[in-house]
Amino acid sequence: MHQIILNLDKRSQIMERLFRYEKVATKIEDIIVRNHLKPGDKIPSLRDVVKELGVSLATVVQAYIILETKGIVIPKPKSGYFVNSSPHNKLQPLVPLIVSQVPATIEVNTIVTEMLKNIRKYAKIDFATMAPPPELMPITKINKAMINASKETSNGNYEYPYLEGHPRLLKQIALHTIGWNKSISQDDVLITNGCIEAISLCLSAVTKAGDIVAIECPTYPGILQCLESKGLRAFKIGIDPETGLNLDELEAGLNTNRIAACVFSPSLHNPVGCSMPEENKIHLVKMLGERNIPLIEDDALGEIYFGTNRPLPAKAYDEYDNVLYCSSFSKTLTPGFRIGWVIGGKRHADIERLKFSTNVSTNTVLQDTIGRYLESGDYHNHLKKLRAVVKVHVTKYRNAISNYFPPDTKISLPKGGYSLWIELPNGISALELQNLALRTGVAFSPGQVSSTSTNFYQYIRINCSLMYNNKIDHALHVLGELVYTQLKRSGTALA
Amino acid sequence: MHQIILNLDKRSQIMERLFRYEKVATKIEDIIVRNHLKPGDKIPSLRDVVKELGVSLATVVQAYIILETKGIVIPKPKSGYFVNSSPHNKLQPLVPLIVSQVPATIEVNTIVTEMLKNIRKYAKIDFATMAPPPELMPITKINKAMINASKETSNGNYEYPYLEGHPRLLKQIALHTIGWNKSISQDDVLITNGCIEAISLCLSAVTKAGDIVAIECPTYPGILQCLESKGLRAFKIGIDPETGLNLDELEAGLNTNRIAACVFSPSLHNPVGCSMPEENKIHLVKMLGERNIPLIEDDALGEIYFGTNRPLPAKAYDEYDNVLYCSSFSKTLTPGFRIGWVIGGKRHADIERLKFSTNVSTNTVLQDTIGRYLESGDYHNHLKKLRAVVKVHVTKYRNAISNYFPPDTKISLPKGGYSLWIELPNGISALELQNLALRTGVAFSPGQVSSTSTNFYQYIRINCSLMYNNKIDHALHVLGELVYTQLKRSGTALA
Repeated sequence: MHQIILNLDKRSQIMERLFRYEKVATKIEDIIVRNHLKPGDKIPSLRDVVKELGVSLATVVQAYIILETKGIVIPKPKSGYFVNSSPHNKLQPLVPLIVSQVPATIEVNTIVTEMLKNIRKYAKIDFATMAPPPELMPITKINKAMINASKETSNGNYEYPYLEGHPRLLKQIALHTIGWNKSISQDDVLITNGCIEAISLCLSAVTKAGDIVAIECPTYPGILQCLESKGLRAFKIGIDPETGLNLDELEAGLNTNRIAACVFSPSLHNPVGCSMPEENKIHLVKMLGERNIPLIEDDALGEIYFGTNRPLPAKAYDEYDNVLYCSSFSKTLTPGFRIGWVIGGKRHADIERLKFSTNVSTNTVLQDTIGRYLESGDYHNHLKKLRAVVKVHVTKYRNAISNYFPPDTKISLPKGGYSLWIELPNGISALELQNLALRTGVAFSPGQVSSTSTNFYQYIRINCSLMYNNKIDHALHVLGELVYTQLKRSGTALA
Repeated sequence: MHQIILNLDKRSQIMERLFRYEKVATKIEDIIVRNHLKPGDKIPSLRDVVKELGVSLATVVQAYIILETKGIVIPKPKSGYFVNSSPHNKLQPLVPLIVSQVPATIEVNTIVTEMLKNIRKYAKIDFATMAPPPELMPITKINKAMINASKETSNGNYEYPYLEGHPRLLKQIALHTIGWNKSISQDDVLITNGCIEAISLCLSAVTKAGDIVAIECPTYPGILQCLESKGLRAFKIGIDPETGLNLDELEAGLNTNRIAACVFSPSLHNPVGCSMPEENKIHLVKMLGERNIPLIEDDALGEIYFGTNRPLPAKAYDEYDNVLYCSSFSKTLTPGFRIGWVIGGKRHADIERLKFSTNVSTNTVLQDTIGRYLESGDYHNHLKKLRAVVKVHVTKYRNAISNYFPPDTKISLPKGGYSLWIELPNGISALELQNLALRTGVAFSPGQVSSTSTNFYQYIRINCSLMYNNKIDHALHVLGELVYTQLKRSGTALA
C-alpha cells in the first residue's frame, strides 16, 4: 500500500517536471518566432536562454531535447542548436467547427473509390494508403505461421469456419487486453474482416437508416463511407489537435439532437494523431453511458503510440457496458489479411448475428496464422521496433514538409500513428492539388475524404507508410513545389 | 448450318427417347405399388414387364436403369431386380403455397445462430452444414498453392489488397464463364467473402429497408437472414420439385406487388435440388428484364450437377444486363476460405463501392492461393470426381432415409447439390425433432430456417456432406426412429 502511494507520488513529480520542460520549450519557440529565425539559423545559446527565462541549465537542456524531437531545432556538433523547421509550421488549433451543426447526409463513396483506383493506376509514391511500412511487416514469421496453419491435421481451417473466430486467435486477443484492468475473455471477442467491418457491424447493430451518428471532424474516411452506405446522417464534432474530441461540442450536440450512436477514435486519431487525455475518456464514457448512447470506438492505431505507454482505450474505462471496441491487425501486422475484431459487450450477440448474415464468418486459416504468430511471442518486439521506426520516419516527413511547403503551412504533431494532417495556405484546393500530384505519380488523401465540412478542403493527409529515403524526399519536394505553384495561380486569380 | 439442324434434330430424338424411358419407369413403379412390394422383394422379370406394358426389352432395361438411379430398385447378380426403397417415398409435389402471398418480415437470425452454436456444441454427426466432404477437398494441392502464394516476392499479398480482387483469380473466374456464350471479362468480376456476402452486397445495391424482395419458398437460410438484417420484406414464390420456380406465381406477384428485387437460385436449388428448364430461365430473365426488376442469382451449387451438363445460369441468358450473378468456392473447394464473387453488370460499380465501405476488400493471399490452384488445371478433374462421388452418396443417403423413416415420408430427388429435402409425416414438428436429435448428437436443418411459411414446419434438410458409412447409416437410423417415436406421440395426443 505504501509502495503504491510512493509510486503515484513519484509519477506526479515526473509529470510536473515534464510539464515544466514543455513550457520552457514553448518559450524558446517564441524566441525563434519573435526573432524571425529561419531554418539553418543558429538559435540563442543555452546560457543566453537560461539568463532570459530565469530557469536552470538542466531545464533548458531538456527543453531543447523536446524541440529536437518535435523537429524544430537540430544540434550540430560543437556549434550548438540551429533552426530545423520553423515553429511557424507547427499545427495551429484547428479552425472552430461552426460550419454545420446540422445532421448531414454524406457523399464520399464515389470520390473515395475513384481516388483509390487512380492511386493504383498512376501513383508511384503513395502517401494515401495507411499501413505499416512493408519492410517492417514480419512476413517471414507470418509465412512460417501460415505454413504451420496449413499443416493442421484436422481439416478445421478448410471446413466452415468458427462463427466467432478461431479460438487460438480469440485467446490471444483477449490476452492483449490485460492492461485494461477489465476482465475480457475470448468469448467477448468476435473476429471480423478488418476494423471497418467491425465498425460497420456495430453501426448496423445500433442504428437504422436515417439515424444521426456523431463522428469526429475530420475522421477516418472509412467511417464516412460506412455512414453513407447505411443511409446514416453525420453529426460532426470538432477535435482539438492536442486533446482530441471536443466534449463541450459533443454535450451540446447530445442535448439538441437525437444521436443514435457515436463513432470516435479517442486514441491516436486518424488523421490528426491526437489522443484524448485519460480524464476526457472517462468523461466521454460517462456522458454516453448515462444517456445509453452506444460509443463505437475505433482503436485501429492504438498500438502505434510514440510516447512511453499505450494509451488505454475508452473501453478500459467503460463501467456502463456501452462501448463497442473495434480494432484490427491492419496497422500493426498486415492489412492484406483483413483480420480485425470487435468487443461488443452486451451487443455481442446482435453483432454476431449480423456478421453471420453478412458473410457467415471470417476465413479461418489466416486467423489461425495470426494466432500462431501471436503465440510465438514475437508481436511485442515487433511492435516496439515498429513504433520506434515509425516515430523517426514521421519526424523526417514532418521536417521535409516543413522545409518544402510554404511557410504558413500547418502540420500536425502526432502522438502516434502514420499520418500527418496538414493545413495548406489559403486559396489551395486539396482536390486540385491531388489531381496535379497524381500526374507526377504522387498520391495523398485530400481533406475532402476525411470530412464533409468545407473547412477541410485545404487540408491534406500524408501517410508516412513508406520508409523515408531520397525518393520520398523528392516526392515531398515536388508536392511542395506544386503547392507553391497553386498558390501563385490563386494569388493571380485573386489579384 | 446443316450440321446445327442435324444436331438439334438428333438432340430432340434423344430427348424423346429419354421421355419414353421415364414413362415406362413410372409404370413399373405403379406395378411395385399395386402389388405392395416391399424393400427386398423381387420385382417382375424384364420379360413379364415387356409383356405387360407392350414395349421393347431395350426400353424396359433403360427404365430399370432409371429406377436404379432413383434408388427404387437394386440389381442383384444373376437374380434380377429387387425393391430397394419403396416408390411410396418418392417426392410428391410440394404443397401449394397459398399460405401467405403478403410480403412478410422475417425473423430467423436468432434461431439460425442458436442452431449453429448448438450444432458446434453437441453434434457428432452434422447433417446441417453444407460443404464438400472434407475427404474430397483438394487440400494438399491448395496448401501447395498457398505456400507458393506466400513466397510471392513482392509484398502484394500483405499490403492493402486489390479493391476488385486479385487479378490472377479474377482472370480464372472469367475464364470459367466461357460456356455461357457471353463475354465476361475479369473487369466484370468482384471478389467477396463467400456467396452470401455477394448476395448481401447486391441487395444493398438495389434495395432499401422496407422494400419487398421476391424469394423462393423454401430457400437457402442465408437469404432469409440477409433479408432480416436489412429490414427487407419477403414475397415468397413456390417451387416445383422438378422445374423449380413457379413462374405463374411470380408473374402474379409482380403484377400485384411492388417488388424491388428477386433472389432466386435457378440451378440446383438449395434445399430442393431442382433446376429450372432452359426455357423457364429465359422466360424469367425476360419477365424481370422487361420490368427492370434486378434478379440476384445464387449459383453457389451450379457446379455440383448430377446430369451430363452444367446447368447454365440465368445470367447466361441475360440480354437485359439485369442479372447479378453470385457464386463461391465454398461448395466446390473449401468453405473455410470464404472466397466468393459477384458479376454485377451495370451495377458493378455500385456493388464495389458498397464492398469497399463494408470491409474494403477480401484478403489477397487466399485469392492468390485459389487463383494459383485454378491455374494448375486441377479444378476440372476435381469437380468431375466430386460430382460423381456426391451423386453416389446422395443416393445412399436417400435409400437409407427411405428405409428408416415412416412410409409416408417424402424425399426430394435432387438434380445436384448436397441436400435432401424431406417432408415428414403429418404431426411431426421439425424443430422438436431437431431438439431430440441433437441430444443423440445428430444435427440437421429444420424447415423453419429455410422458410417462414408454416407449410414447411414438418420438413427437414439433410445435407450429404459427410461420406456415407456405418456411422452415417446409424445416425439416419436413429433419426428415423425418432420420427417414429414422435409420430406415435402425436398419434396419442390426437387420439
